[in-house]
Amino acid sequence: MKLRELGEWQLLAELLPGLPAGSEVVVGAGDDAAVIRGDGRWLLLTIDLQVEGVHFSLAYTDYRDLGYKALAVNVSDIAAMGGRPTAAVVGLGLPPETEVDDVRALYAGLREAAGFYGVSLVGGDTVASPRVLTVSLALLGEVEPGKALLRSRAKPGDVICVTGQLGAAAGGLAVLARRLACPPEIAGPLVRAHLRPVARVGAGRVLAASPGVGAAQDVSDGLLTDLGHICRASRVGCALEVAKVPVAPAAQALAALTGDDPLAWALAGGEDYELLFTVRPWAADEVVARLEAAGETVTRIGVITAAEEGARLIHPDGRQTPLAPEGYEHFRR
Amino acid sequence: MKLRELGEWQLLAELLPGLPAGSEVVVGAGDDAAVIRGDGRWLLLTIDLQVEGVHFSLAYTDYRDLGYKALAVNVSDIAAMGGRPTAAVVGLGLPPETEVDDVRALYAGLREAAGFYGVSLVGGDTVASPRVLTVSLALLGEVEPGKALLRSRAKPGDVICVTGQLGAAAGGLAVLARRLACPPEIAGPLVRAHLRPVARVGAGRVLAASPGVGAAQDVSDGLLTDLGHICRASRVGCALEVAKVPVAPAAQALAALTGDDPLAWALAGGEDYELLFTVRPWAADEVVARLEAAGETVTRIGVITAAEEGARLIHPDGRQTPLAPEGYEHFRR
Repeated sequence: MKLRELGEWQLLAELLPGLPAGSEVVVGAGDDAAVIRGDGRWLLLTIDLQVEGVHFSLAYTDYRDLGYKALAVNVSDIAAMGGRPTAAVVGLGLPPETEVDDVRALYAGLREAAGFYGVSLVGGDTVASPRVLTVSLALLGEVEPGKALLRSRAKPGDVICVTGQLGAAAGGLAVLARRLACPPEIAGPLVRAHLRPVARVGAGRVLAASPGVGAAQDVSDGLLTDLGHICRASRVGCALEVAKVPVAPAAQALAALTGDDPLAWALAGGEDYELLFTVRPWAADEVVARLEAAGETVTRIGVITAAEEGARLIHPDGRQTPLAPEGYEHFRR
Repeated sequence: MKLRELGEWQLLAELLPGLPAGSEVVVGAGDDAAVIRGDGRWLLLTIDLQVEGVHFSLAYTDYRDLGYKALAVNVSDIAAMGGRPTAAVVGLGLPPETEVDDVRALYAGLREAAGFYGVSLVGGDTVASPRVLTVSLALLGEVEPGKALLRSRAKPGDVICVTGQLGAAAGGLAVLARRLACPPEIAGPLVRAHLRPVARVGAGRVLAASPGVGAAQDVSDGLLTDLGHICRASRVGCALEVAKVPVAPAAQALAALTGDDPLAWALAGGEDYELLFTVRPWAADEVVARLEAAGETVTRIGVITAAEEGARLIHPDGRQTPLAPEGYEHFRR
């Protein structure tokens, strides 16, 4: 059987369980980052691979943005664990025809993001890659013992929340990939959301320090897919109220011009790198207040249910449909 | 200017100095692994990218060996720092046409190596890569505070030593790539050296615990190139006695059949993953004795000199030539 027939999720479901893990491993494969018990603070470790033509196109991504984003999306994985990013190593696979100035720009983007997030760039591996530019980045982080946010901690009754607004990154991708001509006040924030995502480290730190938080993960593959990950990992169901999903105003404005469905971008577009989390009902007001005090916006978009009730979307007209993960899945297209 | 005109070493010489590094970073980019101060033990972090057609060919590497080697070569970087490997994350870029059974085999190889080296496999990222199979692996390790082995610690007068024997991996590559027909007692150990390298963790641990050890690194790019790294990082020269370089007997036997120069394999072939290290003259006997007691073989192959004397090869006839790095350099061919 070929990989494109099996798909990413089934492959991982088969490969990840039962990987070798020593007693110091608190959380292994299957969350945003691994959690490893340390002498003091616990360690977080994550890796990301970005491949030309799959994750980005050099037709509309410059090398500086590429370097910036490569680090930011890994920082987002650490943020989703409630941690603080510390040190990164970078593996670059570069076609020999690459301009040296482009590699300098890529490193300038890495440095810029490292400065923004307080990450040390401590090494890497730079190799020839015959045809395809590949950026691999591994990021180390840390979190207070026992405080890591996990996908597996949602419980029935939890309130489902998301920080910020969704759909902007997908709108920005539409602007870039379809070369849409639209007013800069609309295109600007969308393109920026796609090329320069902001990892919610501050929000994650608040959540890690707050009682009553359930599960968390970042919105990378798309809200529906990512909520599905939480439901599977926590063995729960959910009822997501579609009308409550916060759609980025610029995405709505663009969609009004193009005839696209901005809600589809918000539900399935992915790459917004907001934090999706659940919180016990008794703690929801307090957690939302803490996040807002830290300058974050938070929206309550549904509730976690028992597994038997399934994972459902509640549409504005009251109709209910199964939460089908329509986000990005590798090998499948 | 294109990357192939600049080459790997000049690119890194330009990009790596001055990367952002917090106060917890003991050693950043430029050694086999980064060293980061922890609450107790110090952390080591390294990443490697292996690209189809550059680092391996699927014409003669099966997926299980590929997975095994991807972990082993990273373990070697930790061994070269004197550390103990702890946890790995794996980034796989897989063409969608890949057979699922091949991915299973790759993971079987990763698991096998993880079991052998006591490494936890704690996560990863599995993505589509349109044309080229890419394996990226980041490995975390640990070492006692202040005990990491560095490339920059060689001093004039140090004895240059290498563990084991060299040239077997290059001989194995010749057997595979040139489809040489030769007796299995010759081909077997050579092919195994190429496909299933052994990281010298035990030797590194002995060196980290021994007084008087200078610089260390693993023989990955080739003895001459790797000794050049030590000389540059330590700002010293060297006199390498070619006649003393331990050439693997099976490589000699193969070369006798094919007419190749086994010494060239030993000096420039690379991928032997033995440890190259220097030791203060007063400590050499003791360090060699400790390594031999731990079951390692060690050969003294030269001395570190002052920088002004340059990096030189001493040939059997007494002739001296500059140590020209003839090992592998990316982008340059």
